[in-house]
Amino acid sequence: MADKIADNKKLKRLMTGDRPTHNTYSIAHYIGSLKSRIINQDKYDTFVFIADYHALTTHADKTSLISSNTVGMIRTMLSLGLDPKKVVLYRQSRIVETFRLHTILSMLTAMPELERQPMLKEKIASGYKLTYGLMGYPVLMASDILIMDADLVPVGKDNEAHIEITKDLARRFNSMYGHGEDVLVVPEGEIGEIVIGLDGQGKAGKSTGGIFFDDSTEEVKKKVMSMYTDPTRLKATDPGHVDGNPVFIYHDLFNTNTDEVKDLKDRYVKGTVGDVEVKQKLLSAIEQFMEPIRQKRSEIDKNMTDDDIFDLLRQGEEIANNSAEKTINRVMKAMDF
Amino acid sequence: MADKIADNKKLKRLMTGDRPTHNTYSIAHYIGSLKSRIINQDKYDTFVFIADYHALTTHADKTSLISSNTVGMIRTMLSLGLDPKKVVLYRQSRIVETFRLHTILSMLTAMPELERQPMLKEKIASGYKLTYGLMGYPVLMASDILIMDADLVPVGKDNEAHIEITKDLARRFNSMYGHGEDVLVVPEGEIGEIVIGLDGQGKAGKSTGGIFFDDSTEEVKKKVMSMYTDPTRLKATDPGHVDGNPVFIYHDLFNTNTDEVKDLKDRYVKGTVGDVEVKQKLLSAIEQFMEPIRQKRSEIDKNMTDDDIFDLLRQGEEIANNSAEKTINRVMKAMDF
Repeated sequence: MADKIADNKKLKRLMTGDRPTHNTYSIAHYIGSLKSRIINQDKYDTFVFIADYHALTTHADKTSLISSNTVGMIRTMLSLGLDPKKVVLYRQSRIVETFRLHTILSMLTAMPELERQPMLKEKIASGYKLTYGLMGYPVLMASDILIMDADLVPVGKDNEAHIEITKDLARRFNSMYGHGEDVLVVPEGEIGEIVIGLDGQGKAGKSTGGIFFDDSTEEVKKKVMSMYTDPTRLKATDPGHVDGNPVFIYHDLFNTNTDEVKDLKDRYVKGTVGDVEVKQKLLSAIEQFMEPIRQKRSEIDKNMTDDDIFDLLRQGEEIANNSAEKTINRVMKAMDF
Repeated sequence: MADKIADNKKLKRLMTGDRPTHNTYSIAHYIGSLKSRIINQDKYDTFVFIADYHALTTHADKTSLISSNTVGMIRTMLSLGLDPKKVVLYRQSRIVETFRLHTILSMLTAMPELERQPMLKEKIASGYKLTYGLMGYPVLMASDILIMDADLVPVGKDNEAHIEITKDLARRFNSMYGHGEDVLVVPEGEIGEIVIGLDGQGKAGKSTGGIFFDDSTEEVKKKVMSMYTDPTRLKATDPGHVDGNPVFIYHDLFNTNTDEVKDLKDRYVKGTVGDVEVKQKLLSAIEQFMEPIRQKRSEIDKNMTDDDIFDLLRQGEEIANNSAEKTINRVMKAMDF
């Protein structure tokens, strides 16, 4: 495990996490987030956590899935090349000091700061019940980040406002209790691109539809062949639009044969290629991308039991808890507790 | 320390706490709360805590006083006869699992439940800033109580609504996750009398004026001699009112010579006694009540350093943390975490 790295403060700490609302990830989430955390695992002291209590903000009545989703997500990350010797993997719920910091920070957060959050408005508009915990989502997220002294936090555009609250809270705490010193590390957000869904609308997320890493070839085929394209184009000989067209967005992301993509785009604009050919070539590209990942996953599933996965998490949690304790000790001392 | 009692589940657990907003207690608080916890220390498995994080809801900018206030309050309780061999004394901030439960319960609390709290409205009306933590005061209070499996919680009338939320949250958790079993103990509140202030108005609290256990004879005299009496009575020969008259309320509470009190009341109603005599006799009664407590306090201050007091707390916190861990383990298991 990554104890060497966790103690190596020469590397900046990168931290990121996901809610366990699905038992794997979509390939769009790979582009938006997983890819960068795997590429960066050598460059940063990387902490990746499963935000299992955050899942309660919207899934309090479905907790029985949280544990199996957690295992599935870790298996997916390992099959994508995430190295548990380099990355500290842990569950939010096991880092007890996060919740102590959360209680302290809740006293420093004005209600209007939370009420004006765009994500809160969206969640309520989509029918979620406004609980105290949902209202305080940004405070808990700030606690997750600040308890770990994270320097860099890659997030989606939709979480940008939450990073701002996190920075505000760190600065506020430091100015109230720091006596000129930075007790809490003020992190930087790194706002990632958001990959649109297969229907050309909204965000392709873990739970909002898309192609998932555990989809079979047959499922991928069905999803690709029914993807949205240019709605203004009625037959293959009509000149089509490439910009904002989901099929071409996915070609750009997953088709490594750039000449083929360029040729398809040219012919699409001219009206000399049909949707079916464009989709079949996309399907081949996605299958080529997914095949080695599927093989790796099948090896992992053969070699690692669920208990092995939980062992990995427990090892990560020991490191994460050590780090969290150091932070809370500084916090309590600064507050004269 | 009270390990024997903490494990003795034959006794019901009584739990109560105070915010460290002053370095001692008012004698009115003794009547309303401290007296009963001392009388009950043999009858119940008694847990008494200093609610130091709760103090942040209104005192986030005065944390430097929290630690010294905590020591002073414990010294006062010991001088009143609270026996640390029988009672588990601890600081809220040291029971880490409280804050994990708090995060979980926050997901089960609807915002309107908090918004309609009368105490919240009062605090905002009196100028406190509406923070997320102040909004969630009842959720944190519920966590303090439920993490300790308290059976009985004596509180002031002003906290009655908070006990109702606590019971609601316990029942809600049990019905969502208990599969027919009570994971969380549903406590009973015991609503205490509220003693009015020396001015005849409002609540006599730790911080809202009153006679305090560390007041000198001279200070007590000054406070008693300037107490409000019957505002309709202009001279000693006017017939006066006894009901609701602060001087007589305090006589009833602190003057053990009931014949003297009856005689004073009779003469007051007839207009044959002056305010000065009534107050001087009250002063004697209060001094008689306070003198042995002052002596005990001076012994304690001679024999116990602040470190000794913190040792007492640390011993209590070990017991309290053990109890809290058992509760959180049940909670996590019930939720399939």
